[in-house]
Amino acid sequence: MITTDILIIGAGPTGLFAVFEAGLLQMKCHLIDALPQPGGQLAELYPKKPIFDIPGFPEVMAGDLVNNLMEQIKQFQPGFTLGETAETIDKLEDGTFVVTTNKGTKHHAKAVAIAGGLGTFEPRKPLIDNIAAYEEKGVEYFVKDPELFRDKRIVIAGGGDSALDWSIFLSNVAREVTLVHRRNEFRGALDSVEKVQELKKLGKITLITPAEITAIEGEGHVERLTLDCNGAQQILETDYFIPLFGLTPKLGAIANWGLEIEKNAIKVNNALDYQTNIEGIYAIGDVNTYPGKLKLILCGFHEATLMCQSVYNRLNPGKRYVLKYTTVSGVDGFDGTRKEAEKAVVKSIE
Amino acid sequence: MITTDILIIGAGPTGLFAVFEAGLLQMKCHLIDALPQPGGQLAELYPKKPIFDIPGFPEVMAGDLVNNLMEQIKQFQPGFTLGETAETIDKLEDGTFVVTTNKGTKHHAKAVAIAGGLGTFEPRKPLIDNIAAYEEKGVEYFVKDPELFRDKRIVIAGGGDSALDWSIFLSNVAREVTLVHRRNEFRGALDSVEKVQELKKLGKITLITPAEITAIEGEGHVERLTLDCNGAQQILETDYFIPLFGLTPKLGAIANWGLEIEKNAIKVNNALDYQTNIEGIYAIGDVNTYPGKLKLILCGFHEATLMCQSVYNRLNPGKRYVLKYTTVSGVDGFDGTRKEAEKAVVKSIE
Ligand SMILES: Cc1cc2nc3c(=O)[nH]c(=O)nc-3n(C[C@H](O)[C@H](O)[C@H](O)COP(=O)(O)OP(=O)(O)OC[C@H]3O[C@@H](n4cnc5c(N)ncnc54)[C@H](O)[C@@H]3O)c2cc1C
Ligand SMILES: Cc1cc2nc3c(=O)[nH]c(=O)nc-3n(C[C@H](O)[C@H](O)[C@H](O)COP(=O)(O)OP(=O)(O)OC[C@H]3O[C@@H](n4cnc5c(N)ncnc54)[C@H](O)[C@@H]3O)c2cc1C
Repeated sequence: MITTDILIIGAGPTGLFAVFEAGLLQMKCHLIDALPQPGGQLAELYPKKPIFDIPGFPEVMAGDLVNNLMEQIKQFQPGFTLGETAETIDKLEDGTFVVTTNKGTKHHAKAVAIAGGLGTFEPRKPLIDNIAAYEEKGVEYFVKDPELFRDKRIVIAGGGDSALDWSIFLSNVAREVTLVHRRNEFRGALDSVEKVQELKKLGKITLITPAEITAIEGEGHVERLTLDCNGAQQILETDYFIPLFGLTPKLGAIANWGLEIEKNAIKVNNALDYQTNIEGIYAIGDVNTYPGKLKLILCGFHEATLMCQSVYNRLNPGKRYVLKYTTVSGVDGFDGTRKEAEKAVVKSIE
Repeated sequence: MITTDILIIGAGPTGLFAVFEAGLLQMKCHLIDALPQPGGQLAELYPKKPIFDIPGFPEVMAGDLVNNLMEQIKQFQPGFTLGETAETIDKLEDGTFVVTTNKGTKHHAKAVAIAGGLGTFEPRKPLIDNIAAYEEKGVEYFVKDPELFRDKRIVIAGGGDSALDWSIFLSNVAREVTLVHRRNEFRGALDSVEKVQELKKLGKITLITPAEITAIEGEGHVERLTLDCNGAQQILETDYFIPLFGLTPKLGAIANWGLEIEKNAIKVNNALDYQTNIEGIYAIGDVNTYPGKLKLILCGFHEATLMCQSVYNRLNPGKRYVLKYTTVSGVDGFDGTRKEAEKAVVKSIE
C-alpha cells in the first residue's frame, strides 16, 4: 500500500503543480497516471507545439513546460504510479481514502485531488474483429517502452504525427519498420514527413500506401497481418502491430465514484476550494466544471493552489495558516535542499 | 480623453497579464499606475529577488518576470498612464466609465478592472516640519527620472537597498552624491554594500553615518540641509534631498468609490467573474478579497483571465464564445503580427 498526504489522479500540468503548492505546506503527494509519462495532454498530444498563454512565457513548447514543472517540483519528491488507471475509491471511517488502479495497486491518502483532465486517453482502434484477443500480445496502441521493440519486426499504421514520429524513432531500435497508411498523404510536421521520406530512401522504413490492415493471425501472439492494398491482399510477417489512429479522452471509472457530473466534468465548489460533493475529494484543472470555467492550463494552477490550502486547513484544524512568500521564506525541499533569495547583509561601510 | 475597452488600474503582474487575455478576445486595454514604471510590487519592492512559485519557473527574478510579461503583451499595444493616481470614477448613463487621475487625465472605458494590489505606495517621510513645502521642489521620495539629477548635488537618506542602489546608480549621473544613514550598518544585498564601499573609497560617494537630516532651507527650492551627527550640527549645501525610507501601500481614493471593502480589499464575486458590487467594475489580484483568497501572483493571472471572459460576454451579448487554444489558433496582435505554431503539412511520401 502506497501512503501519502494528497493522492493526485492525473499527472498533467495541474496535478504536477499541485505537488509544488502542497510541498510548500509540507504535504506529500503521489500521482497516478494512465499514461507512461507525466505531462498529460501536453506530453501526449502536443509536446513539440508552442503555447502562448502561459503567464510569463511569451512562448513555451508544451514539452518544455512539462520539464520545467518536473524540475520545479522535484525537491518535493512526488511518487508516481504511471501506466495505471485509477479505478475504484473507498472512503474509510476516519475520512481517509483508498484508491485502487486497474492493476490492483492500492494508494492510501488523507485527501484526493482528481486532476484527470478530459479523462484517460482511449486509443481509436482499427475495426479488426479479433484485435482485442491480441492486445498486449503484439498489438500495442501506445509506445510505452521502446525497448519492447528492440530487434523486432514492427508494423505501424496511421498517417499523423504519432505514426510518423514513432516510425522515425523506432527505425533505430526495431529490426524492420513498416508504415501503413490508408491515404497517400501524411499529415504532420514538415520535419517529420521529410525525415520519413529520407529513411524510406535509405531502406530503413518500408512504406505501404494507400493500404489498410484488415486481419491479424498468430498463435497467442501476433505473427501475420493481412494488408489490403486497393483490394489486393498481401500477407505481412511481423512481431508487433502498432495502430496509431489518435486518442479520445474518456472520463472512465471516475464517473461512477458518486461525484456530481455535468457535461462530462466534475462539479466543484469554485466559490471556495474546488472540493466536490464528497468531502475530501477535490477536482482541479480540465476535469472540473463551474460557472465561467475555462479549460486552460493557467486556471488549473490557481485551482491547485487553493485546493492545497483547503487540504492543509482540513488536516490541521485550528492551526492558523499565514501566507508565506517564497521569495521571503524560501522553499524547503523534502530532500533536504533549500532554495532561497540571497540574504541581505547588515554591514557598516568604513 | 483616452478611450479604451478595458481600463486597468494598476500595472502590476495581474494588470499586465489582463492585457494579454483581453487581447486574445480582441479587446484593447489602457493601464494607469501611480509608479513611474510597470511591474507593481515586483518592480518597486524586489526586482532583483527570485520568486519560486510561478508555475513553470523553478526560479525567476521578479524583474525578469515583469519584462517577460511586457514582452508577452506587447503585440496588444497597451496604453500607459504612468506616474498618475486614479482618483475619481464616474459611471455614465450608457454603463461606461470615466476615470480621472490626480493630474486630471481622463480615461473613458467600457469596463474597469482594478488591479491595484495593496494600493499606491506612499513613501515613509522623515519627520521634518516644513518638508511638505519642498516636495517636488528638491525633495523627491521616488527616483522617477534619473536625468532630473544630472550634474546636480544630491543627498540620499536611508539604509536599505533603495538608498544603496540609487546612490550607486546616481554616482554616475549627479555631480555629488552624499549618503546619510542614522546607523553605521546598512542592510542590503552584499553586492550593493560592497559597491558603495568601493565608490566611497574612489570619492564618488560621500558617506555620513550615524546622522540624520533635521531641517531643510531654501528659497522656493531645497538649497541647504541641516545634518545632526550625534548631536553635532552641520550644514550641507545641496540641490536635491531624496529620503528613501521605504513605502507603505494605501488603498487610497479607490476606497471611496462605493465598492464593498473588507480588510482593506475589495469584495468580489469569486464564484463567477471577480466583479465588484458595481456592475462593470472588476477587482483582480492582491486588491480583491473573497473566501479562501490568497494574495499570490499566480492567482491574479487566473482572476484576470476570468474577468476578461466576463467583460467579453458583457460587451458582446448574445455572441457565443468558443474557447480557443493559443497553440491551435495562434495569437493575432493589434500591431499586425501573428504568432502561431508551425502548421502541419499534408504531403505524400514518394
Ligand atoms: C492541441 C492542444 C492545444 C492546446 N493549447 C492550449 C493552450 O495554448 N493554452 C492552454 O492553456 N491550454 C491548451 N490546451 C489545453 C491544455 O492542454 C489543458 O487545459 C491541460 O492539459 C489541462 O491540464 P490537466 O492537468 O488539468 O489535465 P490533462 O493535461 O488532461 O492531464 C490529465 C491526466 O490525467 C490522466 N488521467 C485521467 N483519468 C485518469 C484515471 N482514472 N487514472 C489515471 N490517470 C488518469 C490522463 O492520462 C492525463 O495524463 C491545449 C490542448 C490541446 C489538445
Ligand atoms: C518582498 C515580497 C516578496 C513576494 N514574494 C512573492 C512570491 O514569492 N510569490 C508570490 O506569488 N507573490 C509574492 N509577493 C506578492 C506579490 O508581489 C503580489 O501578489 C503581486 O505583486 C500582486 O500583483 P498585483 O498586480 O495584483 O498588484 P501589485 O503588484 O501590488 O501592483 C498594483 C499596482 O497598482 C498601482 N495602484 C494602486 N492603486 C492605484 C491607483 N489608485 N492609481 C494608480 N495606480 C494604482 C500600484 O502603484 C501598483 O503598481 C511578494 C511580495 C513582496 C513585497
